[in-house]
Amino acid sequence: MGDTGAQMAAEIAEQPVMLERILTDGQGPARDAARLLAARSPRMVLLAARGTSDHAALYAKYCIELMLGLPVGLVSPSVFSVYDSSPALDGALVVAISQSGGSPDLHRTIEVARSAGAMTLAVTNTPQSPLNTISELSLDVMAGPELAVAATKSYTAELLTLYLLIDAWAGGDAAEAVSLPETAARVTGLRSQAQHWAERYRYSQRIVTTARGYAYPTAREAALKLMECTYVGAHAFSGADLLHGPLAMLAADTPVIAVMPEGRGTDAMQPVIQRLTDRGVEVAVVGPSRNSDTPGLTTPRGTPEPLAPIVDIIGLQWLVHAMAVARGIDPDSPRGLTKETHTS
Amino acid sequence: MGDTGAQMAAEIAEQPVMLERILTDGQGPARDAARLLAARSPRMVLLAARGTSDHAALYAKYCIELMLGLPVGLVSPSVFSVYDSSPALDGALVVAISQSGGSPDLHRTIEVARSAGAMTLAVTNTPQSPLNTISELSLDVMAGPELAVAATKSYTAELLTLYLLIDAWAGGDAAEAVSLPETAARVTGLRSQAQHWAERYRYSQRIVTTARGYAYPTAREAALKLMECTYVGAHAFSGADLLHGPLAMLAADTPVIAVMPEGRGTDAMQPVIQRLTDRGVEVAVVGPSRNSDTPGLTTPRGTPEPLAPIVDIIGLQWLVHAMAVARGIDPDSPRGLTKETHTS
Repeated sequence: MGDTGAQMAAEIAEQPVMLERILTDGQGPARDAARLLAARSPRMVLLAARGTSDHAALYAKYCIELMLGLPVGLVSPSVFSVYDSSPALDGALVVAISQSGGSPDLHRTIEVARSAGAMTLAVTNTPQSPLNTISELSLDVMAGPELAVAATKSYTAELLTLYLLIDAWAGGDAAEAVSLPETAARVTGLRSQAQHWAERYRYSQRIVTTARGYAYPTAREAALKLMECTYVGAHAFSGADLLHGPLAMLAADTPVIAVMPEGRGTDAMQPVIQRLTDRGVEVAVVGPSRNSDTPGLTTPRGTPEPLAPIVDIIGLQWLVHAMAVARGIDPDSPRGLTKETHTS
Repeated sequence: MGDTGAQMAAEIAEQPVMLERILTDGQGPARDAARLLAARSPRMVLLAARGTSDHAALYAKYCIELMLGLPVGLVSPSVFSVYDSSPALDGALVVAISQSGGSPDLHRTIEVARSAGAMTLAVTNTPQSPLNTISELSLDVMAGPELAVAATKSYTAELLTLYLLIDAWAGGDAAEAVSLPETAARVTGLRSQAQHWAERYRYSQRIVTTARGYAYPTAREAALKLMECTYVGAHAFSGADLLHGPLAMLAADTPVIAVMPEGRGTDAMQPVIQRLTDRGVEVAVVGPSRNSDTPGLTTPRGTPEPLAPIVDIIGLQWLVHAMAVARGIDPDSPRGLTKETHTS
């Protein structure tokens, strides 16, 4: 395959080392920010992001709701930027998540949030970005320069940084994250398994990804990457929503990828998988192998459910990469896209 | 076409009369609930819903943020039902929106919300439902019995009921809604325009819908109906998100439907339309005709942006209906779906 997608492949492969670096260098700043937030005790959290970072925001939503018990909203940046609205935000924490930290609508969101009395936090891969400058607090996700148009390592860096922040805020010591780089290295080794599925899906017109709970952002991010890099029509549905309508669309010609780490979200997926297989739909499972025939990407056992999104996506990034190359597309520079997107 | 889809067609056509009924009979209860809520002054609102009703929730999110200036979150029901979490909800209003009022995960959400100290409101089309019984407040959306599996009139009934509630809460008198039934009747008259597009899209493998702001829920709901009733791979994107990745997927073989009522959301869509047409993508616009060549479904001028979602979807319901029939599918009973979906 020559150099096609070499940049993206290098950045995918870099993630275990990067996660180790974040655990070493990122914990201090995350704990400092967590101490400040715990002291000021916001009554709710609003998250603002676009594209891939929006899936990191969705992940943070589950973490904050489940680990801190705080209510969380995902902001529609247009409410601030397009409609010039100024909501009542005293006592709220507004978090903007962005690889580049350069998008004007997020800048506007933080600007309005600050003047409405909210605490503000920027989580970016660009410490000198306008978003960091304007926010009261900021965290560098330490992914290092990301050159491929499709974000891979900056996504997992955002996830781990947000996890470290929220875990520390909840009084944790991140003990469970220690083995993450090793698990990530094992999932990074699933490239040939991913290659198998990529060949199988090569001529597919569409692909559905699904999950529940913590794993749902992984399904969403995989679908976005598939659309960006392979141009396949990829749909992500929560397992519950899938049964509310989109199931009609599914037949034997649409493969389904179910993200199923160990945990309660996956328990709740079992009836969904049953309904799909009853309809003759082929389901590939991303998760530890179970006592069933369902094949897929077999990840290591023992990863706590809140940490699984940080490693499971790596297998799916390989799938996307291999499928792009198989379809003759250079995933380093998909048509019509640039690295940084400016929306107002 | 015989009787194929007769039920869905009857329910689409019924909407102008139904909207009139809601304006007559639904305003009193909406005002009473609004008075109570205004007096208790919740500090934030959380919305819980699934499927079509989730798009009504998204609409309510824009209305509450923009008309009341209150922060709003969309609840992931799994946080309450799958993970048994009990977040801090004192001073919050939790609203569950559901046609049937029968889904166990919403029931569980309201149950947890009440015991966590939240105000609770059920918005359903089934006044005697378990959800109504368990909620502190409830509103009947008065759509009358809905028999087609694909929800149409219950969706617009939810939208208008939520609008009346939020408008009254904000101190309004719903004056702008008076002409809604007449506008709805004119959009209901667009069936043959919709038929034209349905024939044009008959062999399309996928369709993308897009919008920004208040109109975005319309794009989402149209995509869900397309998936349910025509089995086409339909994707909804906010205009901003579309530029962050999914644009790569779009080429001349994927038609785009842009929902563009008069207002700021549509102003913000102009650069998106430009990028799409530059790429050779055909865009059909749902909205009042503009000084451009873009064809589509031409809706009447003069509808305020927050009310346009209640009528614009009607033209798209006709499009979905016609496309289903053209593709040999009975939209009254799509494969694999039942009217009421129970998810936990």
